[in-house]
Amino acid sequence: MVDALSSWNDGAAKAAITGFVARVAREGGPDYVPPAERIAVFDNDGTLWCEYPMQVQVFFVLDELRRMGTADPALLEKPAVKAMLAGDLQALAGMSKQEVFEPAFMVHAGMTVAQFKASVAAWIEGARNPKSGRGFAAGAYRPQRELLDYLRANGFKTFIVTGGGIEFVRVVSERLYGIPPEQVVGSSTKNRFEVTADGIEVLKLPQLGSFDDREEKVANIELHIGRRPILAFGNSDGDLAMLRYTLAGPGARLGLVLHHDDAAREFAYDRDFRLSPLREALDEGAGYGLTRVSMKDDWTTVFGD
Amino acid sequence: MVDALSSWNDGAAKAAITGFVARVAREGGPDYVPPAERIAVFDNDGTLWCEYPMQVQVFFVLDELRRMGTADPALLEKPAVKAMLAGDLQALAGMSKQEVFEPAFMVHAGMTVAQFKASVAAWIEGARNPKSGRGFAAGAYRPQRELLDYLRANGFKTFIVTGGGIEFVRVVSERLYGIPPEQVVGSSTKNRFEVTADGIEVLKLPQLGSFDDREEKVANIELHIGRRPILAFGNSDGDLAMLRYTLAGPGARLGLVLHHDDAAREFAYDRDFRLSPLREALDEGAGYGLTRVSMKDDWTTVFGD
Repeated sequence: MVDALSSWNDGAAKAAITGFVARVAREGGPDYVPPAERIAVFDNDGTLWCEYPMQVQVFFVLDELRRMGTADPALLEKPAVKAMLAGDLQALAGMSKQEVFEPAFMVHAGMTVAQFKASVAAWIEGARNPKSGRGFAAGAYRPQRELLDYLRANGFKTFIVTGGGIEFVRVVSERLYGIPPEQVVGSSTKNRFEVTADGIEVLKLPQLGSFDDREEKVANIELHIGRRPILAFGNSDGDLAMLRYTLAGPGARLGLVLHHDDAAREFAYDRDFRLSPLREALDEGAGYGLTRVSMKDDWTTVFGD
Repeated sequence: MVDALSSWNDGAAKAAITGFVARVAREGGPDYVPPAERIAVFDNDGTLWCEYPMQVQVFFVLDELRRMGTADPALLEKPAVKAMLAGDLQALAGMSKQEVFEPAFMVHAGMTVAQFKASVAAWIEGARNPKSGRGFAAGAYRPQRELLDYLRANGFKTFIVTGGGIEFVRVVSERLYGIPPEQVVGSSTKNRFEVTADGIEVLKLPQLGSFDDREEKVANIELHIGRRPILAFGNSDGDLAMLRYTLAGPGARLGLVLHHDDAAREFAYDRDFRLSPLREALDEGAGYGLTRVSMKDDWTTVFGD
């Protein structure tokens, strides 16, 4: 028999996943969940692909600012934008995720969504993670791609719920994870319907719509999905609200947290990573009923190469 | 051969639908669209179910106000809430959709989303349209249910994009139209993640998140779906932006407008219906490339009974 999770070592984490899926999929069993309600949500940065030393979108905005600058004086006042224009990675790493991401989401105001997506698609082909030398798309984790396929083969509907920009992640979600745009939930700017000489487009505005992190992830799950998930997978305290919301529902539930403890094959970081710390979820995770996944121990490969 | 659209009379509208579907589904043909991009969006009130003399959710809020009142003095100042509490249907019918809907969406602030949905589910079983005497769920149009099934059988993914409350419509969308909650886009209040003694819930707040009408429908299609639809169906000027956005994309496109011209089997109204007027879409529709669907001429039955 082919093991659908061949990049996962046999161990507590893999057993928790396969046991859970078998229980909810067993018709007539006490934990059976109809397919329509098998909703699984995954964080993206650090859960589905590499987010170290900074999230992929930060590198994108950095390159975009180098390419086009920003015409907005208010944005130039933001410490994160200043640091990006100066190429000061160390300053960025010392800021919170919200400090870095919020102004970064505004840099593309005035573009149409279609232009923005084209610019992401072109950029991601060539750019590389400066620490690993790896192309950013090649930073997607092989075991997670297997897990997504395995869940879908068992009737689950898989969603991304990311602090990253919703339009940014949609450019790669289908190709990397088999997740269509309409199943990506993320941070967003406000957009406007615009009739131009060229046609009818959606224009990106310089106002934040939603910063999809922490408690906001739960509000956005309700807004976009409208059902409580039965499985959630994250890797930082920014995912804790959605993990706890998932586990608090009735019936069988699974909440997983990826621990980056693998300095040899990827990176080792947790509490001290300002841009996305894993602290409460690590220290209190067992009490919340979370299952820890060790990159080092639970995965036979990280990138599959 | 069974006609999947047996509630549709042979005529220009039916031919436009079947011709369009055949073209986009024909592999190798010039208008072929891969299934993943066959996105169809439908307005709900007046397009999928009866909205006359007022939208279903207005009757719900009316009954809810009678049942529980409102504790919020600011809401009591709103003309629509005053009229609802007085049972003054005539005053409501003279207001704009936004005047009526916006405060109505706030009435349930303080409830959890789960409580709100339970209250909708209980109400809709018993309540009846005062003009038709018909239960509200029985106000769903048989030809539209057939059309949704037909589109899905041809690889389309069907979405509702409604000015009604997103959580309200999700209670009935699966049962009435085969559309799961995650494929419903609508107006929304802001919500908050809340840890209570009973568990972890999502709480409705007294602030409007989005009033999903006119141009905002397009912004929300981008936010929730992330692709431009290739088919849109509406029945009022509130749907015009999403219809024009749909038609403005490249390749084969179809934009349909239901005309309520059937006083015998349903109701006849268009330009003068304040709560959801059909004026520009009727007068300029041909120029925009819209296809008019006449309830009287194009449907063999309205409710299928």
